[in-house]
Amino acid sequence: MISKISGGVTAAKGFSAACCAAGIKYRDRTDMAMLYSSVPCTVAGVFTSNKVKAAPVLWDRGIVASGHPVQAVVVNAGIANAATGGTGLKLCRETAEHTGKLLGIPADSVLLGSTGVIGPNIPLDRITAGVSAMSEKLSNTPEAGTAASKAIMTTDTVNKEIAVEFDLPAESGEGMVTVRLGGMCKGSGMIHPNMCTMLAYLTTDCAIRRDLLQEALSAVVQDTFNMITVDGDTSTNDTLLVMAGGLSGNRCISEKNQDYELFCEALFTVCRTLAVKMAGDGEGATHLVEMHVYNADTKENARTLARSVVASSLVKAMIFGKDANCGRILCALGYAGPDFDPAVIELYLHGEKETLCFYRDGCVQTFDEEKAAAILGEEAVRFSCDMKMGKEEATAWGCDLTYDYVKINGDYRS
Amino acid sequence: MISKISGGVTAAKGFSAACCAAGIKYRDRTDMAMLYSSVPCTVAGVFTSNKVKAAPVLWDRGIVASGHPVQAVVVNAGIANAATGGTGLKLCRETAEHTGKLLGIPADSVLLGSTGVIGPNIPLDRITAGVSAMSEKLSNTPEAGTAASKAIMTTDTVNKEIAVEFDLPAESGEGMVTVRLGGMCKGSGMIHPNMCTMLAYLTTDCAIRRDLLQEALSAVVQDTFNMITVDGDTSTNDTLLVMAGGLSGNRCISEKNQDYELFCEALFTVCRTLAVKMAGDGEGATHLVEMHVYNADTKENARTLARSVVASSLVKAMIFGKDANCGRILCALGYAGPDFDPAVIELYLHGEKETLCFYRDGCVQTFDEEKAAAILGEEAVRFSCDMKMGKEEATAWGCDLTYDYVKINGDYRS
Repeated sequence: MISKISGGVTAAKGFSAACCAAGIKYRDRTDMAMLYSSVPCTVAGVFTSNKVKAAPVLWDRGIVASGHPVQAVVVNAGIANAATGGTGLKLCRETAEHTGKLLGIPADSVLLGSTGVIGPNIPLDRITAGVSAMSEKLSNTPEAGTAASKAIMTTDTVNKEIAVEFDLPAESGEGMVTVRLGGMCKGSGMIHPNMCTMLAYLTTDCAIRRDLLQEALSAVVQDTFNMITVDGDTSTNDTLLVMAGGLSGNRCISEKNQDYELFCEALFTVCRTLAVKMAGDGEGATHLVEMHVYNADTKENARTLARSVVASSLVKAMIFGKDANCGRILCALGYAGPDFDPAVIELYLHGEKETLCFYRDGCVQTFDEEKAAAILGEEAVRFSCDMKMGKEEATAWGCDLTYDYVKINGDYRS
Repeated sequence: MISKISGGVTAAKGFSAACCAAGIKYRDRTDMAMLYSSVPCTVAGVFTSNKVKAAPVLWDRGIVASGHPVQAVVVNAGIANAATGGTGLKLCRETAEHTGKLLGIPADSVLLGSTGVIGPNIPLDRITAGVSAMSEKLSNTPEAGTAASKAIMTTDTVNKEIAVEFDLPAESGEGMVTVRLGGMCKGSGMIHPNMCTMLAYLTTDCAIRRDLLQEALSAVVQDTFNMITVDGDTSTNDTLLVMAGGLSGNRCISEKNQDYELFCEALFTVCRTLAVKMAGDGEGATHLVEMHVYNADTKENARTLARSVVASSLVKAMIFGKDANCGRILCALGYAGPDFDPAVIELYLHGEKETLCFYRDGCVQTFDEEKAAAILGEEAVRFSCDMKMGKEEATAWGCDLTYDYVKINGDYRS
């Protein structure tokens, strides 16, 4: 059984966090975070599929691919360190070296993350001053984890964290131990499937073999972070990392047994929760939008169809306007790519108390417009489509398109 | 040589047009248009790739595929006759039969087009009353063509028409004759590449074999209508038709000779002009946006890269805000799909008087922000990217993302 608990990245044994106001771009707020593990961690990661990759993505990818254990993460908000060429890579190296020296760990056990404007260089002196300050403030309290999740925000309106716990057999062979998995993420604009999305950092005290950790993460991301979209723009900086320190004392997961399944389930819970939080906090958003596609012929087609609906500007605008112009959902399914029969599929709008069918037998149905408008006014707007082709299903999450999205992105740099 | 002339769909010999206010959805404006050719025409068409196709698209596709000559087109604005099942198809048949009877031509020589809200049924009595009224008002004046182009508008703010003329060898073998090609289109929202876009009707008095007419149209659409985007939503109703009556007296084009090349050039001019007009009149748009990708490795990659930039919500919003946040253009190239080397490509912003380089050698360049803001304030905003890979190029057109886009689409039906 998996239970949600309070806390985030510091919930698992051995992990501490810190943050500071380094003045990188924002004023009067924290903008740097540090995570530290008291023991070397196995690490797995998924990164942006964008051909233009930010310097910290290149740095992290190298470390994750090498299999080298990691012990710290340093993240800044405000400037993305992307499109910065050799200068950006040099900044990464120097940041990691400075962090390593202060924490007494190798530079290549330090992961980096950046989020913000593409193009400008990050002033090295502010980064190093920030790292110095944070290295003296590391704390394993829930408050420290929460503060870190706030420090990495950009246009996010709320911080995003979660932690769960579950029991696994003890390494000693006697009884069970409690394992914890927690995480934080940020992301609000430049969010689109076909990648791992935004900055997300997970920590666990589970002992698990590296290849299985990576396999679990790569699988789980498909139905969680890759199923959300805010604006169709896949960022240059997307990074999802999970660090496993092993201090819970569980029997190390080294094969695909029941323990592995339970760990995957916990990982799915954490990733989905964080992903849905990101979708609902999309730039300018006033509603979370959920599209569930079921009875599809293949899993991939179910995903493609569901994502097409939540990515449609017209669907997003209609939800902002609480206007049940449901032909737009049908239209978005139709141009998604996968084949289907428009004469047999059925489309539904699900309110908290009531479900309306608005398309069936090849025709848009007559429905109570007032009821529909009321449902579209709920905080989370849920649609579903029965494809009547097979047994596969998928859910995608997005948000509405609002004046504020345009406002935020018409003048993001200033 | 191809010369632009005044007029639109009635410019070519033999074509007349009419319109009327049928009260299908809009009040106090014209909402139906009719085109008529005094002789049976060869026809070619390209239709939406959306799996959900409106009834008139199914009707027209059947006629175009059959090779049957056509003589009339009836179009309505306000309701799309999409997702209307058998009722919608029956309406098509009855509209064509009524039109055919009044004009004295077979029902299967009548093409149909609809644009507007998906879902509702069109009242047959209003359509037939409209057809009856229009069949008595057909006129070959430029004013009649212009009035027709206005009657098919939905959220368009301006009507869109163009005509050109060029000389081809006469059928008689003696000297040259003047051939005309004109067209009108409508489209403002639900516009995205990967299809032929929106409703566009072209008329010509050129004599040309049917297979060559279709081949020319299918080729030209790739670099014209398929290279524009307003909101990424591919409509259920997209239709592009060209009717060739042959009354100019030119030697019939029956092989890919110089005459064919000149006709293709004229077709390209007409299609590109109409397509760019649609992009610039995107819902809520205040700027036309053009992205030129050159020195790409393949034509298809050049198209994909150019379209990705004009389709990006973040690029569109930054142009609305006149904020030269050029990393977003780089980002949109990066997630487009095609491979390239971010360290060597170069990005430019072209003003009427000045060009700014804003990305080179893997880094965003320092540029004069005031100059950039001034260029972004021009009516048409032009970017280009040198991929440094090969010799292929493509241009895509779009528009900015504004408060008005959200407003128009948050409440389109009412």
